[in-house]
Amino acid sequence: MNYNEEALKMHLELKGKLSIESKVKVDSKTALSLAYTPGVAEPCRKINKNEDLVYSYTMKGNTVAVVTDGTAVLGLGDIGAKASIPVMEGKAVLFKEFAGINAFPICLETKDVDEIVNIVKALEPVFGGINLEDIAAPRCFEIERRLKEEMDIPVFHDDQHGTAIIVGAALINGFKVRGTKLTDARIVINGAGSAGTAIAKLLLNLGVDDIVMCDIDGALDENSDDINEAKKALALITNKHKERGSLKEVIKNKDVFIGVSAPNVVTKEMIMSMNERPLVFAMANPNPEISPDEAKKGGAFIVGTGRSDYPNQINNVLAFPGIFRGALDVYAKEITEGMKMAAARAIADVLDEEELSVDKILPLPFDKRIVPKVSMAVKKKAIEENVVKKLSL
Amino acid sequence: MNYNEEALKMHLELKGKLSIESKVKVDSKTALSLAYTPGVAEPCRKINKNEDLVYSYTMKGNTVAVVTDGTAVLGLGDIGAKASIPVMEGKAVLFKEFAGINAFPICLETKDVDEIVNIVKALEPVFGGINLEDIAAPRCFEIERRLKEEMDIPVFHDDQHGTAIIVGAALINGFKVRGTKLTDARIVINGAGSAGTAIAKLLLNLGVDDIVMCDIDGALDENSDDINEAKKALALITNKHKERGSLKEVIKNKDVFIGVSAPNVVTKEMIMSMNERPLVFAMANPNPEISPDEAKKGGAFIVGTGRSDYPNQINNVLAFPGIFRGALDVYAKEITEGMKMAAARAIADVLDEEELSVDKILPLPFDKRIVPKVSMAVKKKAIEENVVKKLSL
Repeated sequence: MNYNEEALKMHLELKGKLSIESKVKVDSKTALSLAYTPGVAEPCRKINKNEDLVYSYTMKGNTVAVVTDGTAVLGLGDIGAKASIPVMEGKAVLFKEFAGINAFPICLETKDVDEIVNIVKALEPVFGGINLEDIAAPRCFEIERRLKEEMDIPVFHDDQHGTAIIVGAALINGFKVRGTKLTDARIVINGAGSAGTAIAKLLLNLGVDDIVMCDIDGALDENSDDINEAKKALALITNKHKERGSLKEVIKNKDVFIGVSAPNVVTKEMIMSMNERPLVFAMANPNPEISPDEAKKGGAFIVGTGRSDYPNQINNVLAFPGIFRGALDVYAKEITEGMKMAAARAIADVLDEEELSVDKILPLPFDKRIVPKVSMAVKKKAIEENVVKKLSL
Repeated sequence: MNYNEEALKMHLELKGKLSIESKVKVDSKTALSLAYTPGVAEPCRKINKNEDLVYSYTMKGNTVAVVTDGTAVLGLGDIGAKASIPVMEGKAVLFKEFAGINAFPICLETKDVDEIVNIVKALEPVFGGINLEDIAAPRCFEIERRLKEEMDIPVFHDDQHGTAIIVGAALINGFKVRGTKLTDARIVINGAGSAGTAIAKLLLNLGVDDIVMCDIDGALDENSDDINEAKKALALITNKHKERGSLKEVIKNKDVFIGVSAPNVVTKEMIMSMNERPLVFAMANPNPEISPDEAKKGGAFIVGTGRSDYPNQINNVLAFPGIFRGALDVYAKEITEGMKMAAARAIADVLDEEELSVDKILPLPFDKRIVPKVSMAVKKKAIEENVVKKLSL
């Protein structure tokens, strides 16, 4: 199937993949008087007296904004807010189809951090959560940090944390199949942007302590002159053996390669230089750092990619629907590191031991067990960590 | 029926009157690959190359933002953005039910004019039109003026223009029933806020030249010390006989009273002081300036209110669905005074001469003739005035 052609045809026919529907029929004076004036005034008055009731009388509690500035869209880069809309609509489609959540694309015609922060904050009334999407690093870090600090609803940059959570789940199950301990693993991550950073942090939280981050110049060196603040901070918490050199050099004797970088930057020979039975997650989109076939030829034990036409797809759709479902259901104020780890473990746990294999370390997106399991784990953790709002409803 | 109680119950059960639905089922790998990656990249690329194609491949062309800051909500006043949501959802319900338009509530947690303008501009990518709603005067004038200047899509403050258009339609038909010429009418408008201002302007455009505007201090006097700029501008284009004094004084010998002010500020005696067979539109919500019964006792020939439980409801739902339908269908860049007058005439024209009576000068909201007639008139006018975008699709 030619996806490009088919997708274009589908988008042209639909003219947008979302429809905002009314839950009430307005076909009589009475219906009009209840959905609109004069009846509508009463829920307004109630919310005016007690703001918490916005969760009882409006869509807020089940509605998420998918916010982007269009600067890092898929593998397409900075294509602008308008050109990003098909992706954001698609994301909203997945929110609804997988978790029953209303999601609306907020595609912003600005790249200014202060402006984006102010806009998203001003939009808070109608939204129960904020999903940041396809915003370029390092800007995305500051935007997320400030929104998390200044907003009272969950803010989640999916490119960072969604990806990190799936990689975490894939590693948990991958090491079960490999029969060694994840916490003993030596890992190299190529790509020190938003996804790479979040993956490193989640893995540190999961107890992995031997992680080397690489970017296009090789292993991150906190003493380098031309390193930005985000990468410097990352360099300081990783690379405990102070390894230096190119990816080709530092990939040697590692158990895991995680790529969130660019196509074809890894060769069969590089895989051969890794420890025995290495795990290779080559997630560059649409073309991975190394093809699964080549990786296998180099001795890779388990291979994952971002693609649906190979086994072990690292697909964010396994995470964000259940995470937001859980967070919204308990009125969580934020999505904490603990909730992210709980989500990673829950995704891994969807598959029983006997279901696991080198070609199946993650559930398929359409596995009906995922969202209930993930949302439950996220809810429990939110309550345990006491990050849920106490509403007077 | 107790509307308050019933409406509260309905809102609580629904938890929001809107649902964002996916137009595509995502139940297979193929469906996922078309609605999301990798297929979705192709429409993105196309839009990136030719921005106009955002109208072909996304929801933009049929999606309107209902924007408010919650400062002038119904008759409730400045109740805040959160408490305004039930109204904005209700408005979105009407957009969908009456005209098939997607509308989404943008309820902003800011009252700053610059901020509101910047936010709405930044939100433009995904919206084909902006409906400003329940923003207090005089701030609403500047917000609308700047957005109209700086945006390339229609911006329409419904409280101003929607109301003005319906009043215009009601007067056109009211004077047919009365058997005199509208352009000869002497009119007093009580309430010099957003609606009153827009009504005055539309009536001037319709050729009525004897209009006196009143606020709480009586007839607007452009020489008054404590008059704001908006009211001063209004005073300068109305009141050709330089009438002075309270409403009670200036209502004398008028043919029409239009109230967009406060409950019970007009007495039977004041109606008796008007010219013979006066038209009285008492639109304060939920309680009119004078009850229809009292007005009739004072000799009113035709009475209109904002209420659905009396004849001649001045209801914006007669206008905005058809206006936006027409504007969106031809990719109008704006909604001009000409398009507004065309809409007023089209609404009046929905009723044939034989349908008209003192108790029926306007069609009922559920009259299926309205939206096609209004949208057609608006489209024609937009094309005639050459305010439609030339898109390369």
